[in-house]
This record gives sequence, structure tokens and C-alpha cells, in this order.
Amino acid sequence: MGRWEPNALERLQLAALELFTERGFDQVTVNEIAERAGLTKRTFFRYFGDKREVLFGDQEGFVGLFAEGMATVPPEAGALEVAAAAIERVAAVFPIERQPFADARRAVVAANAELLERELLKRAKLTSAMVDALRERGEPEPVAKVAADLAALAFSTAYERWAEPGNREEFADLAREALAELVAAAAGLSSPAAAPGR
Amino acid sequence: MGRWEPNALERLQLAALELFTERGFDQVTVNEIAERAGLTKRTFFRYFGDKREVLFGDQEGFVGLFAEGMATVPPEAGALEVAAAAIERVAAVFPIERQPFADARRAVVAANAELLERELLKRAKLTSAMVDALRERGEPEPVAKVAADLAALAFSTAYERWAEPGNREEFADLAREALAELVAAAAGLSSPAAAPGR
Repeated sequence: MGRWEPNALERLQLAALELFTERGFDQVTVNEIAERAGLTKRTFFRYFGDKREVLFGDQEGFVGLFAEGMATVPPEAGALEVAAAAIERVAAVFPIERQPFADARRAVVAANAELLERELLKRAKLTSAMVDALRERGEPEPVAKVAADLAALAFSTAYERWAEPGNREEFADLAREALAELVAAAAGLSSPAAAPGR
Repeated sequence: MGRWEPNALERLQLAALELFTERGFDQVTVNEIAERAGLTKRTFFRYFGDKREVLFGDQEGFVGLFAEGMATVPPEAGALEVAAAAIERVAAVFPIERQPFADARRAVVAANAELLERELLKRAKLTSAMVDALRERGEPEPVAKVAADLAALAFSTAYERWAEPGNREEFADLAREALAELVAAAAGLSSPAAAPGR
């Protein structure tokens, strides 16, 4: 078997997802994933550090896309615009063909605490990269934290909606919508009507 | 050795923290933790499901305190007031005597990906319990999500400040301050000045 295998990463991810869906994450070995994909265990470990990683995309790639998105926004723009550009840039790499994969993946991750932990760690790292980038643009700490947090929340809300069977909307549109909803909700929180007792 | 040991939980937590700080999380066994605490492995597993759990408080207890705090707020109050009451109720159980423990604990958790993952999972569960409670009070979904998220962010910001060596401020005061900062930042995000390009 040659060193280079066409679409090895995607084949491993699809094989893993099939097996996890059939038998549950704990009941599947890396060997079995590699076999189902027609590849070797060694090839698996060339792409992924461990069994959990196979369901996660290229983390550094995401951080790079975030940075790319943020770089398109002029320096005088506000934190919200920067955060929106970051998530829209990432959303653009989720084509609608990947949607059935996303729905199955979501179900597998939700069913396993280990996978959920890994997902949360990945998300926390992305959020903290965005906080750092916003701080570097001169945003005060609370503004950077809130903007990154709302962007992360918008991203996961949009991902859920996008992954839902039957959805036909683009991820980037859903992300923009979700962010607008959350920002409007946040603005309403601090209005006097929202806290009559204070 | 009797079945009941005074302060077994606290002794195990302190012993674990000492050992993790001395040698790193991976280099310490449950047996060694129990031994340092003058207890048995069996006693350890009466309190904690695994080695990671020893650094985490009583999750169900926290959820209960959140609920208690929220129950004190009149039904007509806004989501923000409810979220604030929840975190202030939990903050009240962190007495200043626990502060040196908190600082050492924070360092150990930050140094280990497995512990960080567990911490994020616990935090996500608390946040989602708060989202559910706010929804049950009739808050629309985006409002419930944002209020719970800002409360969680305020809680972890306040925890960091509280744990800092030399801090003398009460956790509840720091939590209130952090929430006010974040809410003000969130309100500023949606103002036209924050997004001149849109």
C-alpha cells in the first residue's frame, strides 16, 4: 500500500462515523475504522492523534480561517463585525453536501461524554483564539470576551440548525441569522424593562 | 478503618491537589491520593467516579444551588436578574478560606487537557441547566441562551479573579461586578458605533 491514499482523511472520517453509529463509539477500534476505510492503522495515525480526533476537523485550519475572516474587516470596525466575519468565513467551508455527515456526527458526539468533552475543548480553544485576536485589535477585555462568546454560541446554534435533516439553508446564512438573534437578545437584557426589580 | 471518615472528601481533594501540583496529574495514582489522605482506595471511589473527578465539586449540588438562587427571583423579573441570582447563590458557598485551594486547583486544571475537558463539560452542563430553567420561566430561546452564557462567563471570570493570590474580595461581589461588565459590553456591541460598516 502506497504512502499516499486519495481522500484518506475523508474515508477514515466516514468509516468511523458509520461504525460509531452502528455500534457506539466505545465498541469500535482504530483498526476497524482503518479496515472499513480500506487503509492501515498507520495511515489513521498519520491523520489523527487518537480515536476521538477522527470526528473533528482540522483545528488549526479553523483557527486560520477565523483569522482570515477577521483580516478582511477594516481596523475601525467593531468587535461584532469582526466576530461575524470570522464565523462566516468558517461557515463557508461547510458545503451542503456535508450536511448528512453533520447530522450523524452530531448524534454520535451527543451520545458520548468523551466526545462531548473533546468538542467542548475544541470550541473553547477557537473561542479563546478569537478573544486574543479581538484584544490585539484593541478591544477591551469584556468586549472581546462577549463578542467571541456570542459568535461561538451563534456558530453552534447555526450548526445544529444546518445539520437538521431537511434543512436547505446555507450555513453562512444561518450563522448570520443566529448571531443577529443573540445580539438582539443580549441588547434586550440590559434594558430597564428586563430587570424591573433593580 | 471505619466506614465513616471525618472530612474524607476534603482530605482526598487536598491530598490530590498536593500530589498533582508536586508531580503532575498523569504521574499520580488513586492509591497514592488515598494514602496521602490516610484513607483507602475504596473510600476514594465512594466519593469520586475516577481520578479526574476529585478536583470537581458536587455537580448536582451546584445545579441545586443555581435552582435555589433562581427560585428567589419573582416571576416577572428579567432573565438577567434570574441568572445573577443563580451565580450569586453559588458564589456564596466559596468562602475565602478555600481561596488558596482554588488558585492551586486552577493551575493544575490549566496544565492538563483531560482536566480542562472535564471542567468544560461540567460548565456546559451547568449552563444548559440554566438555559432550561430560563426557558421554563417563559424566556425566549435566544434570551435564555445569552443570559445563561453571560452568567457562565461572569462566573468563570470572577472565579479567576477570586483565586488570584492576594485577592481579598468576596466571590459574590466579584461575580456581580463581572456580570455587570459583560452585560455593558454586550449592550455596546449592537450600538451603531460598534459596527460602522453595517
